[in-house]
Amino acid sequence: MGRNRKPIITLLTDFGRQDSYAAEIKGVILSRNPQARFVDITHEIPPQDLLQASFILWRSYRYFPAGTIHIVVVDPEVGTKRHLLLVRSENQLFLVPDNGLLTPILHESKKNSFYVLPKRPSLFSSHTFEGRDILAPCAASLSLGISPQKLGVRISSIKTLPPWHVSWEKNRLLGTILSRDHFGNLVTSIREEDYLCFKGRGKGKEVWVRSGGNVIRGLSRTYAEGGRGPAALFGSAGLLELAVRQGDASKILKRHSGDSVQLIYGSG
Amino acid sequence: MGRNRKPIITLLTDFGRQDSYAAEIKGVILSRNPQARFVDITHEIPPQDLLQASFILWRSYRYFPAGTIHIVVVDPEVGTKRHLLLVRSENQLFLVPDNGLLTPILHESKKNSFYVLPKRPSLFSSHTFEGRDILAPCAASLSLGISPQKLGVRISSIKTLPPWHVSWEKNRLLGTILSRDHFGNLVTSIREEDYLCFKGRGKGKEVWVRSGGNVIRGLSRTYAEGGRGPAALFGSAGLLELAVRQGDASKILKRHSGDSVQLIYGSG
Amino acid sequence: MGRNRKPIITLLTDFGRQDSYAAEIKGVILSRNPQARFVDITHEIPPQDLLQASFILWRSYRYFPAGTIHIVVVDPEVGTKRHLLLVRSENQLFLVPDNGLLTPILHESKKNSFYVLPKRPSLFSSHTFEGRDILAPCAASLSLGISPQKLGVRISSIKTLPPWHVSWEKNRLLGTILSRDHFGNLVTSIREEDYLCFKGRGKGKEVWVRSGGNVIRGLSRTYAEGGRGPAALFGSAGLLELAVRQGDASKILKRHSGDSVQLIYGSG
Repeated sequence: MGRNRKPIITLLTDFGRQDSYAAEIKGVILSRNPQARFVDITHEIPPQDLLQASFILWRSYRYFPAGTIHIVVVDPEVGTKRHLLLVRSENQLFLVPDNGLLTPILHESKKNSFYVLPKRPSLFSSHTFEGRDILAPCAASLSLGISPQKLGVRISSIKTLPPWHVSWEKNRLLGTILSRDHFGNLVTSIREEDYLCFKGRGKGKEVWVRSGGNVIRGLSRTYAEGGRGPAALFGSAGLLELAVRQGDASKILKRHSGDSVQLIYGSG
Repeated sequence: MGRNRKPIITLLTDFGRQDSYAAEIKGVILSRNPQARFVDITHEIPPQDLLQASFILWRSYRYFPAGTIHIVVVDPEVGTKRHLLLVRSENQLFLVPDNGLLTPILHESKKNSFYVLPKRPSLFSSHTFEGRDILAPCAASLSLGISPQKLGVRISSIKTLPPWHVSWEKNRLLGTILSRDHFGNLVTSIREEDYLCFKGRGKGKEVWVRSGGNVIRGLSRTYAEGGRGPAALFGSAGLLELAVRQGDASKILKRHSGDSVQLIYGSG
Repeated sequence: MGRNRKPIITLLTDFGRQDSYAAEIKGVILSRNPQARFVDITHEIPPQDLLQASFILWRSYRYFPAGTIHIVVVDPEVGTKRHLLLVRSENQLFLVPDNGLLTPILHESKKNSFYVLPKRPSLFSSHTFEGRDILAPCAASLSLGISPQKLGVRISSIKTLPPWHVSWEKNRLLGTILSRDHFGNLVTSIREEDYLCFKGRGKGKEVWVRSGGNVIRGLSRTYAEGGRGPAALFGSAGLLELAVRQGDASKILKRHSGDSVQLIYGSG
């Protein structure tokens, strides 16, 4: 990484699009490394929604090249004494508040190292927009090849959130709705691996999906295959989704982020 | 194109901005060509609205340099057996589902060639997010100088949509509202060329514009010239627009995409 | 600047995100300087809201490197005879309509020079989308090292807006709410310098903040410090903000852009 001065820097925030907050972060970085390049993951995380932020980061970070620097600013505890972190996980770098955002990524990574970033004192600490004033200069330094050890103090562990819920109960596989996407599709915490293992136990019995009062028979392979009604399928994140072709599953099924979902085999 | 490894790749989708779908496409491309550069045309096409997508693509593609690669993902038939296409039209490249999106562009281009992209088999085809998993790698290959012939199988024709409606009827020129822009301006299918030809027939009689119950006398040269009331003028796409200065013409005139519009000369 | 052909070009508009207007500007620039790079400040200025546009530009431009070119298209008088300007202020360049947008920036810059850009004649002037057809080619020329003198005619002054309101009245410091950000925080025109000077006069008496029927006792140092109720603090632009932790201050306090705010010491 020391030689590539053009790594990608991604931004994932709850800033929305109407203000200049994200642009100020980019300006600070470009003032220090004019070759920096950016990809906006999204700035439309609902304010301070850690579950949605950690889900979006988890599903997208894996598509970026080695050495990518991810800046995440979704932070219910902004301005408190919680730490700001630099995390190296496998070959990617994350600049994040210490609030558990990286939990699902750390679950699948073996080589992780954690560094606490120093906060600069300021007369009015409220002046400090931490994303712009601490994380951005740090991202610029990383992009110029400065090593994590020079930027922070290594620590052994960081805050984590409860893992996404998946559990077994006789002939049921229980999960949670993690996210409602732009189209209204509901993404759940049930992974294909969970399903394949579960299906093996069912000895060929048909699988049903239940969430609230909704019952869906069988799994589809594509959004189109479900016809006009609701369908359940493994989507582009490798997780079970509830979807309605050319419709808004969240509205039609009246289900939302945080609600439970069940896969059932046999008579249910 | 073989030597320029930094072509522009544009994205035009109905993904919205809250998810990471567009960022995942960019990540996949950057992992294969770290020098790729992106311009987001828009991600706010109303879900699966082919008319709006084809209009926006048509009006914007002409401003991009030769060799630009346009990825379009607006696709009511996602996951069905419709093809994914690579199209070379004059000196630009398009990666699109075969759903007619390119119709207005092909109408004005002479040199077009079409290629069907192979779909990779997958156990659960629903896993395949075609924009990310098929179009993005293909865009990366094109950006690295690989020729279209190596990426797809040449075919002779592709699906088209009905052309934008413009017709003549005595002293009337009939068209359709194609799009409502952010400001509420209504863009119609009537081109300046149609108007100039039509005007010649009118022998100097005054021109009126009608749409629904609305009547506008004469054409304006600028948004400002119309004063406070509704105005009709040829806008920045070279098409007749209905506009209200500092107001929302769509709301005020109660007209929408798909509604008809008439240019009339004489007593109407 | 003559040698750096990769300066940053920022865009600040009221175009929204659904159309291709911003992308067309980028396409025009890339067709003339393939190395140009962009940062979108925002495209979500409320239509023709000069106060919000000038505030956002003022707070963000300072973070960009020397030589950055800022294109601003927020223009209630679009299509009238008002001029289009190229302004060099200290080491940054601005391409803007002559409508006062730069007022707060010029207030803090010493070296400013102003140039009027020529408008090209066109049969139907409505065809001219000035941001795309005049400002974009000019930005491309600047990015290629062409000097401002070659692009416009130097003039000695430009239009200004009234300065942001701050005034003194006995034991009161009076200001205005300039902006409501994405989180509902209300940013006012009262700078920390004003406050420090004001505080000196109060001889240690406690400071209160009033706006409409709302009274806030004391200033906080961080969003978190205010507890659950409304807080007043100097925010990331160095201006007094009214905020509610994890809440929407604008809704809770029922205050908006343009409303007055007071800092009071002593019994009020």
